[in-house]
Amino acid sequence: MQPAPRIGRLVSGPRDLISDVAGVSVGHCTLAEGPLQTGVTVVRPHAGDPYRDRVPAAAVVINGFGKSVGLMQLAELGVLETPIALTNTFAVGAVAQAQVQACVAGNPGCGRRLPSVNPLVFECNDGTLNDMQAMAIGQAHYRDAFDAAAADFAQGAVGAGRGMSCFGAKGGIGSASRVAAGFTVGALVLANFGRPEQLILAGRPLGARLVEALAAAGQRGAQTAAGEPSIRDEPEKGSIIMLLATDAPLDARQLRRLALRAGAGLARTGSVFGHGSGDVALAFSTAYTLPQDPARPMPAVALLHDARLDPLFQAAADATEQAIVHALWHAQTVVGRDGACRRALRELLPLDPGPARD
Amino acid sequence: MQPAPRIGRLVSGPRDLISDVAGVSVGHCTLAEGPLQTGVTVVRPHAGDPYRDRVPAAAVVINGFGKSVGLMQLAELGVLETPIALTNTFAVGAVAQAQVQACVAGNPGCGRRLPSVNPLVFECNDGTLNDMQAMAIGQAHYRDAFDAAAADFAQGAVGAGRGMSCFGAKGGIGSASRVAAGFTVGALVLANFGRPEQLILAGRPLGARLVEALAAAGQRGAQTAAGEPSIRDEPEKGSIIMLLATDAPLDARQLRRLALRAGAGLARTGSVFGHGSGDVALAFSTAYTLPQDPARPMPAVALLHDARLDPLFQAAADATEQAIVHALWHAQTVVGRDGACRRALRELLPLDPGPARD
Amino acid sequence: MQPAPRIGRLVSGPRDLISDVAGVSVGHCTLAEGPLQTGVTVVRPHAGDPYRDRVPAAAVVINGFGKSVGLMQLAELGVLETPIALTNTFAVGAVAQAQVQACVAGNPGCGRRLPSVNPLVFECNDGTLNDMQAMAIGQAHYRDAFDAAAADFAQGAVGAGRGMSCFGAKGGIGSASRVAAGFTVGALVLANFGRPEQLILAGRPLGARLVEALAAAGQRGAQTAAGEPSIRDEPEKGSIIMLLATDAPLDARQLRRLALRAGAGLARTGSVFGHGSGDVALAFSTAYTLPQDPARPMPAVALLHDARLDPLFQAAADATEQAIVHALWHAQTVVGRDGACRRALRELLPLDPGPARD
Amino acid sequence: MQPAPRIGRLVSGPRDLISDVAGVSVGHCTLAEGPLQTGVTVVRPHAGDPYRDRVPAAAVVINGFGKSVGLMQLAELGVLETPIALTNTFAVGAVAQAQVQACVAGNPGCGRRLPSVNPLVFECNDGTLNDMQAMAIGQAHYRDAFDAAAADFAQGAVGAGRGMSCFGAKGGIGSASRVAAGFTVGALVLANFGRPEQLILAGRPLGARLVEALAAAGQRGAQTAAGEPSIRDEPEKGSIIMLLATDAPLDARQLRRLALRAGAGLARTGSVFGHGSGDVALAFSTAYTLPQDPARPMPAVALLHDARLDPLFQAAADATEQAIVHALWHAQTVVGRDGACRRALRELLPLDPGPARD
Repeated sequence: MQPAPRIGRLVSGPRDLISDVAGVSVGHCTLAEGPLQTGVTVVRPHAGDPYRDRVPAAAVVINGFGKSVGLMQLAELGVLETPIALTNTFAVGAVAQAQVQACVAGNPGCGRRLPSVNPLVFECNDGTLNDMQAMAIGQAHYRDAFDAAAADFAQGAVGAGRGMSCFGAKGGIGSASRVAAGFTVGALVLANFGRPEQLILAGRPLGARLVEALAAAGQRGAQTAAGEPSIRDEPEKGSIIMLLATDAPLDARQLRRLALRAGAGLARTGSVFGHGSGDVALAFSTAYTLPQDPARPMPAVALLHDARLDPLFQAAADATEQAIVHALWHAQTVVGRDGACRRALRELLPLDPGPARD
Repeated sequence: MQPAPRIGRLVSGPRDLISDVAGVSVGHCTLAEGPLQTGVTVVRPHAGDPYRDRVPAAAVVINGFGKSVGLMQLAELGVLETPIALTNTFAVGAVAQAQVQACVAGNPGCGRRLPSVNPLVFECNDGTLNDMQAMAIGQAHYRDAFDAAAADFAQGAVGAGRGMSCFGAKGGIGSASRVAAGFTVGALVLANFGRPEQLILAGRPLGARLVEALAAAGQRGAQTAAGEPSIRDEPEKGSIIMLLATDAPLDARQLRRLALRAGAGLARTGSVFGHGSGDVALAFSTAYTLPQDPARPMPAVALLHDARLDPLFQAAADATEQAIVHALWHAQTVVGRDGACRRALRELLPLDPGPARD
Repeated sequence: MQPAPRIGRLVSGPRDLISDVAGVSVGHCTLAEGPLQTGVTVVRPHAGDPYRDRVPAAAVVINGFGKSVGLMQLAELGVLETPIALTNTFAVGAVAQAQVQACVAGNPGCGRRLPSVNPLVFECNDGTLNDMQAMAIGQAHYRDAFDAAAADFAQGAVGAGRGMSCFGAKGGIGSASRVAAGFTVGALVLANFGRPEQLILAGRPLGARLVEALAAAGQRGAQTAAGEPSIRDEPEKGSIIMLLATDAPLDARQLRRLALRAGAGLARTGSVFGHGSGDVALAFSTAYTLPQDPARPMPAVALLHDARLDPLFQAAADATEQAIVHALWHAQTVVGRDGACRRALRELLPLDPGPARD
Repeated sequence: MQPAPRIGRLVSGPRDLISDVAGVSVGHCTLAEGPLQTGVTVVRPHAGDPYRDRVPAAAVVINGFGKSVGLMQLAELGVLETPIALTNTFAVGAVAQAQVQACVAGNPGCGRRLPSVNPLVFECNDGTLNDMQAMAIGQAHYRDAFDAAAADFAQGAVGAGRGMSCFGAKGGIGSASRVAAGFTVGALVLANFGRPEQLILAGRPLGARLVEALAAAGQRGAQTAAGEPSIRDEPEKGSIIMLLATDAPLDARQLRRLALRAGAGLARTGSVFGHGSGDVALAFSTAYTLPQDPARPMPAVALLHDARLDPLFQAAADATEQAIVHALWHAQTVVGRDGACRRALRELLPLDPGPARD
């Protein structure tokens, strides 16, 4: 496969994946059977149990039309205490239960003499391709995705990305990394947003061409069951989840600042954070952990000075934009429920990577 | 039963319940079998389907150590689109799924041609009395609570309140209402917070007496399985959910202001919003609804002027404090998992209602 | 003078002032000439220049009807970079300018090669007693208050508290401290809130007595110029600023949590956070500072575990309530513009301190 | 002058200025004498007095490194009550005082029997060109800008924009408008942000060319006094203020959503919301006003359905990006304090407007 267009001037880590941040791993569980085109993706911040060794983290809600769970406690305490799970909108409850069960299995006192655990599940609506009402995702799918987590992982129409749409084409999972000021910032997105006419790919405005290509491919008539609006009239129902990892020593306040810069990368792809789009970004640091048990000593952490954050902000925006490009680039055409189809962007618009954007 | 001590100078509605706000109804489903001491409580803001006729609402997170779901979209859009559900911490996923299923059953396009639905489930940790790890709550319990909703409903150790603790005594569901400036403000709490020494009951500091009474009742040794800390050493693991309803024409911004005043009522009972306590308040208005379908006309609403809110703020604080008093007053002693026991406050501290606090 | 009623069971530091947190000092500049009854109070977090050695801090807006400045950057960066100034509403601009001038005088590169400085000025409306429209406060008054800063300082109708009202009686400056878990939490309030009927003094509901006493004293007719509403009809125009200092090693996220607990202390005095009241709390830590200059090393800080915060939360609520009691207790009767008068609470309601509240 | 490059596909209003929203007017007062290169810009939302007839509004802080005043009360009440003022960082106090004085002059009860007024002043740091420490802005400059307000007004190095820098070139005031779904969205920016290498002008990445052009122009050596860092090493000290007006009937919650989309337009110009940049957006609606006097009736408003906001979101992003382009396009070279110079972008990079971006 041709390499995807490159974003920005910063160098990538060796994999150009979120797992270039040492210790981070990603696993998928994919359902792809007829009307069930969905899945679960799990991002593990480290190889241990985050319930016991908590990970500094923060999220920022750019547009809150979404059903993600776990953000309230994250905002209060500034830590992750489970792996991060991604799935479809109607599967959030099942995956949250799976996270609780997994935590209890590893920590029998959880919810008894130990505090309860805060599930952290993000979602996008894959209802165009996937029959969400079938509630096909169960706890085993979460466990399978967790067990599959590795530094190398697939992008595109896999895991939670299986049924996702993006700019009217096929969306899904994308990832990237950038190195700046001696630190690595990795991004992983679940891309399910955008109307075709908005697309800016690596700086190139391709919306008009994409609208034509979709028309030529006859997507509009075919895409959905009778009585549903054409893609042109349809309000955006999508969303994007943007996860950032870094090895820089940042606290939750700083990580919230970093997470917000994912929104700059998103905007450069043409998104205006549509009304119906749940656009949420989360950033975590792997530089230190915080013990669940207050009897264990707290680490003495020298944080990065805020005046040194600009290179990381650039890296966060660039890695996020690159991850979105990767999600589109790696996507494969998927046909789902009622014959609905989302085509791979590279089928719709045969593209060369072109010169890197300045 | 003796009447409970009265809070404040404002008059109550006819029931002194949240259902004094016309149209609001409440239903419980209670599990009370050996180690399973838990349940679901549902608050319906009106008799229709809030997915179609949305209810202006806002929440305020006083302390975010909690696992409630639905707050992100509520903050963005300022509306409820399901009934409000209360349950135990580990049952949130199941109850959220039940809300989704109920919405899909009534709106087959939900998650297909119509937007997905935002479940709204609040929780407290009833793990002292209830075996949360048994995951006993299923979707049918939500439906039973929904079907039971009525203007008259029980308080105390019922529904989601079955297994809750409060100041080391038995907590649970309490409700109250106040009338001010021609409007009614109703409150319903799920009270599961507080250490014994903090209790201020209707203005009377009873903490020292309660600590003695609990010691005399031998609660400390008996309460929990071996190896769990005594009540004195135990960090607060509780929470309180405070729901306010009003018939005043307020928008989401104003309702957020109203919800915050529940925190004033809570503080007057002795709470300092403990670290481990998920203290969340939500307020909604029944004065108008907003259509899901953008093709239906939006209502022309003349809101209450902000300078007229003070009487409602007083009513919100007083109704919340009264609802907490009612939760304690109506509580019955419950014995749950591993012989753990939470005694009714009125058994521990035989109280006369005394003079109303000024 | 009789000792004031005591709040809670925690012990105080040696002065029962915010300056029990080592390094904190407070200075006043008071104007008390006819219709000018106002002033400036300055709280210095340490003896150095906070522009160079920044102080971790966070604020929480309980009710945002107010004109304080500096909160946006404080929320973003989590640090103080000036002393904290308190004054009247219309003097905020002048005092902010004075802070800028003082910073430039000590740091000639400020706003040139160095970043600009973030003034931090809180205010309450003393317009009942003071002719705010005269704009009597100038930059020299800030400097005088700064120069007067010391560990020992006056409370009551001094500094920014000179013209303030509280529950219809005389308000002003109050301070207190509590020791918990080996740390000290100090509070200083500028108390200018509350309607008479709401007063709860150290747990005792005194609203009805105070309303009577004010009537007997003829305050209502006399208080304000013709055409202004009586105190009964008047919407609350007050505010309260609550400052907390601690020597516990907390970061901005934790300090925000601590600051919120000031609201619990405030609520126990009868406040329901009135519509027109700017109720703002700020907490800072003296345990470490953060260098302005990114070339200087960042400190390696082991923060207090969040699960150990409960004693500090209790201390914050208790010290705040105590500081409000002190503001009322130390207040002297003041006659200001147009003959308006606010009487000392102890003249209106001769009180013995009574038993400490449980 | 050549027309500036066009952003997006939406049509503009007749002036392509914020004043295409009927009733909105803008005035400047400019100081341009040697080391004093600064000013004040005033945006009036309507021809009346916003203290009496309040304007629904909301702000969003994208990056809070800034000293703007008035945002706390705006967030609480959701209304403007003064014209919006823009100026330099050290002039905020003086301009806020001028707003208070102007309000008192028109409303003698303000701060007496009427509530005090909430000044609303935004700022950027023009210290590279302007001697901010001279504190040259006084109250008269605010009044002059107010008096000059009109539907037609200048862009570029005028008013508050006089001393501003943008991408290392000359910044300042820019404005634009877009029409969508029957409503107009107007934008006005005070552009003072960006490092040269980041510039994306109407979709074209021009950073590398701009860096070269600045080097050729010798700006780096010349720009600042000895001892100040070169532009390459300098952390971003800029900021951008983005004001949006619309005639759509939106409330404060919806206006906050609209304001956030200004950030999407900003990101498309290359900004990643730098650490030292105070990036703040505010949106207001002219569709209705809210009376200060609670005795006057509140308007019955049928708001726009949230599902109809997407066209306005696109308009907000496009108008903001266009306003930034206009700020750069209309800028003139300015030489200020110590010989520092910021060149007009069109001198540095002679540009044709090129084809409109798709």
